[in-house]
Amino acid sequence: MSEPAPAKRQKSSKDVPYHLIYWPGIPGRGEHVRLALEEAGAEYTDTAFTDKGMDEVLAMIDAKNLGDEVNLPLCAPPMLRHGDLVINQTPNILLYLGGRLGLVPPADEDADGVYRVNGLALTALDGFSNEVHDCHHPIATGLYYEDQKEESIRKSKDYVKNRLPKFLGYFERVLQSKPSGEGPWLYAGRLTYADLVLFQCLDGTKHQFPKAVEKMRKSGDYDRVFALYEAVQERPRIKAYLKSDRRQKYGLGIYRYYKELDVVE
Amino acid sequence: MSEPAPAKRQKSSKDVPYHLIYWPGIPGRGEHVRLALEEAGAEYTDTAFTDKGMDEVLAMIDAKNLGDEVNLPLCAPPMLRHGDLVINQTPNILLYLGGRLGLVPPADEDADGVYRVNGLALTALDGFSNEVHDCHHPIATGLYYEDQKEESIRKSKDYVKNRLPKFLGYFERVLQSKPSGEGPWLYAGRLTYADLVLFQCLDGTKHQFPKAVEKMRKSGDYDRVFALYEAVQERPRIKAYLKSDRRQKYGLGIYRYYKELDVVE
Repeated sequence: MSEPAPAKRQKSSKDVPYHLIYWPGIPGRGEHVRLALEEAGAEYTDTAFTDKGMDEVLAMIDAKNLGDEVNLPLCAPPMLRHGDLVINQTPNILLYLGGRLGLVPPADEDADGVYRVNGLALTALDGFSNEVHDCHHPIATGLYYEDQKEESIRKSKDYVKNRLPKFLGYFERVLQSKPSGEGPWLYAGRLTYADLVLFQCLDGTKHQFPKAVEKMRKSGDYDRVFALYEAVQERPRIKAYLKSDRRQKYGLGIYRYYKELDVVE
Repeated sequence: MSEPAPAKRQKSSKDVPYHLIYWPGIPGRGEHVRLALEEAGAEYTDTAFTDKGMDEVLAMIDAKNLGDEVNLPLCAPPMLRHGDLVINQTPNILLYLGGRLGLVPPADEDADGVYRVNGLALTALDGFSNEVHDCHHPIATGLYYEDQKEESIRKSKDYVKNRLPKFLGYFERVLQSKPSGEGPWLYAGRLTYADLVLFQCLDGTKHQFPKAVEKMRKSGDYDRVFALYEAVQERPRIKAYLKSDRRQKYGLGIYRYYKELDVVE
């Protein structure tokens, strides 16, 4: 893969490929990390496509794992290994990658930019990932969907009626705001990882609630958000990635399609 | 530059008091910000105790608010104003404050420390704040508790049986790990904001599920976690704060006591 052009990438002991540790077989929360790495053209490996990838995930979250000399034990994937460092939590990994991959404004131009981008990413993940997941698992993540189906239908109806327009409306306002700048992106007129997160969140939400998202799109009330969604898809490296075998299909992960949950208000 | 938190506090246009914007009347997510500011002895104001504090919160989240010249509109409190900067999202505010208040390892000693601390804080908030809140609002945040009481009981039973020991067990392992270092703290043998977050999360969870948390404490399986909880309470500034009128009582916020939810396995 070709090299990214971050402002000040330095050769260091960490100038090694990134390694994503995430459940093989679903895009899930790992997909936010993949999109950042793909957009930057960074070199990386991924347990979704390595031998014994699943074993690696399971070993990392084993209840006897006490970390190593420098790394704390970690509770859940996605995790990122970079040289000797291993960290987890999606927004934390993106924060780590943001400056390294040129996906936040350079700190010497905009020292606070990283907090704006982190805040946007956290909000997108709250509204379009955590809450959407909970629409098919409102009672217990350890139970089957079928054991909480009625509650899921009830929560999904509330989500598409109240929460989906709330969060779409919020990001539409961000895109209208002065600090968003010119062009399709959320902050400072340039692509940041928050745009990639919002794209992926909306793509997954569309998979789970196709009718409701289409209704929102047609309403015309969120045109800037849907324009951002399309603009991310048109990024050359993202476009190539989305067509590749590396882009996994949605399955029984964060975003799930169940006909009875595909409700509209 | 890729490090979000500067190592050294510099005199600047931002060398002004911090201002917390959060719902008056409940500790809520704002409490994590308060504890960081209190531990550091930082000067701050707080909409919980200012005239028209509620109006200020409501104006910030008004659906017509488009931010200002430099700040994006923000979706929900807590928010932190510092000079011209306004940001939101609890872990994002803590990240911003961490380096400034000396609540993360200095970047020149441990450049990756900030990601370890951020990861711990995000995990504590997931496990002991977001999930605990959802135990009394599993179906819809916009509905009354009484309209989702049966589902709340079901979710609470799952939480205290499966989720509470999972997250307590995780933090117990962190405290056993080598990178945790000597003493009661989670990382590098020194107090960080992750310790304050874990304290507050556990305190709130104890308010909501007193029987289950007491059972966990007595089990002896999580002695390090409960020792951390006590060690935070004994910090001189935290101790004074907890006795002061600035420490608000739990009410109808993130953490709620309902007798029927106070279940044990």
